[in-house]
Amino acid sequence: MTTSSTLARLQDLDAKDPLAELRAHFEIPAGIIYLDGNSLGALPRRVAAHLETVIRREWGEGLIRSWTQTNWYELPRLVGARIARLIGALADEVIAADSTSANLFKLAAAALQLRPGRNVLLTERGSFQTDVYILEGLASIFRGNIVLRVVERSQILGAMDGDVALVVLTHVHYRTGEMFDMPEVTAAAHARGALMLWDLSHSAGALEVDLNGAGADMAVGCGYKFLNGGPGAPAYLFAARRHHEQLCQPLSGWAGHARPFEFEDRYAPANGMARFLCGSPPILGLAALHEALSVFEGVDIADVRAKSSLMGDLFIELVRPDCARFGLSIGSPQDARIRGSHVSLLHPQGFAITRCLAAHGVLCDYREPDAMRFGFSPLYLRYEDIGHAVETLRSVMTERRYERAEYRQRHAVT
Amino acid sequence: MTTSSTLARLQDLDAKDPLAELRAHFEIPAGIIYLDGNSLGALPRRVAAHLETVIRREWGEGLIRSWTQTNWYELPRLVGARIARLIGALADEVIAADSTSANLFKLAAAALQLRPGRNVLLTERGSFQTDVYILEGLASIFRGNIVLRVVERSQILGAMDGDVALVVLTHVHYRTGEMFDMPEVTAAAHARGALMLWDLSHSAGALEVDLNGAGADMAVGCGYKFLNGGPGAPAYLFAARRHHEQLCQPLSGWAGHARPFEFEDRYAPANGMARFLCGSPPILGLAALHEALSVFEGVDIADVRAKSSLMGDLFIELVRPDCARFGLSIGSPQDARIRGSHVSLLHPQGFAITRCLAAHGVLCDYREPDAMRFGFSPLYLRYEDIGHAVETLRSVMTERRYERAEYRQRHAVT
Repeated sequence: MTTSSTLARLQDLDAKDPLAELRAHFEIPAGIIYLDGNSLGALPRRVAAHLETVIRREWGEGLIRSWTQTNWYELPRLVGARIARLIGALADEVIAADSTSANLFKLAAAALQLRPGRNVLLTERGSFQTDVYILEGLASIFRGNIVLRVVERSQILGAMDGDVALVVLTHVHYRTGEMFDMPEVTAAAHARGALMLWDLSHSAGALEVDLNGAGADMAVGCGYKFLNGGPGAPAYLFAARRHHEQLCQPLSGWAGHARPFEFEDRYAPANGMARFLCGSPPILGLAALHEALSVFEGVDIADVRAKSSLMGDLFIELVRPDCARFGLSIGSPQDARIRGSHVSLLHPQGFAITRCLAAHGVLCDYREPDAMRFGFSPLYLRYEDIGHAVETLRSVMTERRYERAEYRQRHAVT
Repeated sequence: MTTSSTLARLQDLDAKDPLAELRAHFEIPAGIIYLDGNSLGALPRRVAAHLETVIRREWGEGLIRSWTQTNWYELPRLVGARIARLIGALADEVIAADSTSANLFKLAAAALQLRPGRNVLLTERGSFQTDVYILEGLASIFRGNIVLRVVERSQILGAMDGDVALVVLTHVHYRTGEMFDMPEVTAAAHARGALMLWDLSHSAGALEVDLNGAGADMAVGCGYKFLNGGPGAPAYLFAARRHHEQLCQPLSGWAGHARPFEFEDRYAPANGMARFLCGSPPILGLAALHEALSVFEGVDIADVRAKSSLMGDLFIELVRPDCARFGLSIGSPQDARIRGSHVSLLHPQGFAITRCLAAHGVLCDYREPDAMRFGFSPLYLRYEDIGHAVETLRSVMTERRYERAEYRQRHAVT
């Protein structure tokens, strides 16, 4: 029950929250509690104004001149540098480009070249599917010479044998929120001579990530979840500096050339991460993401993580007493140290419950077959919101409102 | 000389121009004659307002709900359908995604699978470099089993032997503006059993293109030149319907899955062109391009082509008498039937001349080592502009203003 004493406790946490003032940087519609920033981050207010400048002034007035007179060419690097700070990387180890999927393809292809004697790509069954699909697509080019090995989570360490060139894992699982021990798993891969690539899509911007501290080789991640870059925002990729000069990737478009305006006959990769650029940089998307990331400037990620952990703990604490009578189960680790920034509740009618919650102002999302994901974005969520969200869930479940026909019609959500 | 009688003739053409009123749809800065729409199309006025709606209402207010309550998921198809009409394709044969470079990679990989007994990718030396680089990158994966054959323009037909799986050519050459005879070259490729892929980056939106009339197999093109989609706009790709069910591409991300929200363990390609989607669609870029393309609705592409041809003819007619004394030469075909929508003038000081022209309000671009490109965007350019641009060029050349130090400092332009 969200009693008045609970509410007072949450409001007290809000009053002491070092991140509380960041909420004012975001557009949060009145009457909405937004627990889906892990799917699409809320709009940072300054992004709308900035995009208007980019469109009307830089594109409209500057026209072609803006390629040389603004930061357009630099945006992939500038965005990369801002993300680098959030994931424990050096500024020149991260660059923004393309989609998470395309970036994984590029890095995995590069990894195969770094480990020429090895023929296995290893990943987790039930990880976010695009990671599996992309590795499947890459392996298919080699017609049997490269093998994709997909194993259950519990079998990953055991599957790291001497044939594995690259291990690809999602740091925080998209359904359960369970988090790998990045240093431990990376060390295990290295012990077997494999390279380690982390998908940070559900981590960056909500958790402390220390890629270099863990010795990771590569990483990818998306820009539209906790980084708030907007729908379909450009993604990013990381490679440790020790690998830079050896990296070779097949999506060798002109933007990744060492001298893109010399129009040379042969491809020559640019220095460092710029060789992972392919086509012309998507300026509108990059400009939005760059501006969105400015909200993180001066923010201590340790504060973000502390709030994220506590919000998840509070959500579980408030929901747990009612789980049995509502037929709900908690599909995420109860220990915040191995949980990312979302909590899944499982219920056979999860889809209808999610829609019913949305009709009552609580936005979360749903993943087949039964998972409702409640995401906690520390930059714009209040502790009090957690209490109100659980209260709404309780009334929806008590009155079984989700059983109404209007909530049961299927549609897709990301 | 742009005499008063010439000016009167140009103004008379403007008065009779069936496309004249389209100029009002674009932001053209005062005092600027914009002859670089072949690098970055001008801003369609409605795009700025539309993007504000997408950002503030769809993203800001709608949040995650907009994935199901707006056209976001449909944008790749909707954009594709609008482009299809401009290039002689069926609506479901074109989809918008990623960059031109990435799209070429996907299609060329698919083409290799359609022609398993053949091991050569054929393209033109000196074509826009990213096409060559991408084919080089694709071939590199196969470690000698797939060969990239790059030949001079005059050797292309002769190089189409029985080993060629795919011929990749740019329909309108980025430097010279010279245009291939699409039906003839496509027929020659087919006669040798090869597939034919056209890069339409310098064609779509300025010329009549009839992919299906020519029997073309595949095409790619960018959204930011004559289609006016904005800097780094999403690109598009075409495959003839007869190939759809056999096409298989390795950038197999979740967005191209037949059932992206079922989270299946194995990749299964979506029907038709949707299988060429990879990561999450870039909504800001797609929304801008979709809105920009609406300017073409109701426009007869035959009118666009007629104006484009005549503008190029007029430009050459007005420049030619002065070429010898200014040390200029014309680097494009004089016959409009084999010329796209830009004309190149060659001069050893081309870079400085281009910068000097820009300082006097005439924007064109420069390509190493000596080519100044003057592009003619029929939707927003007036015939009168051609006269004023040539007059400015004449005064710049007569007074050798381009020799001033301020115009000689190098910088990069797209």
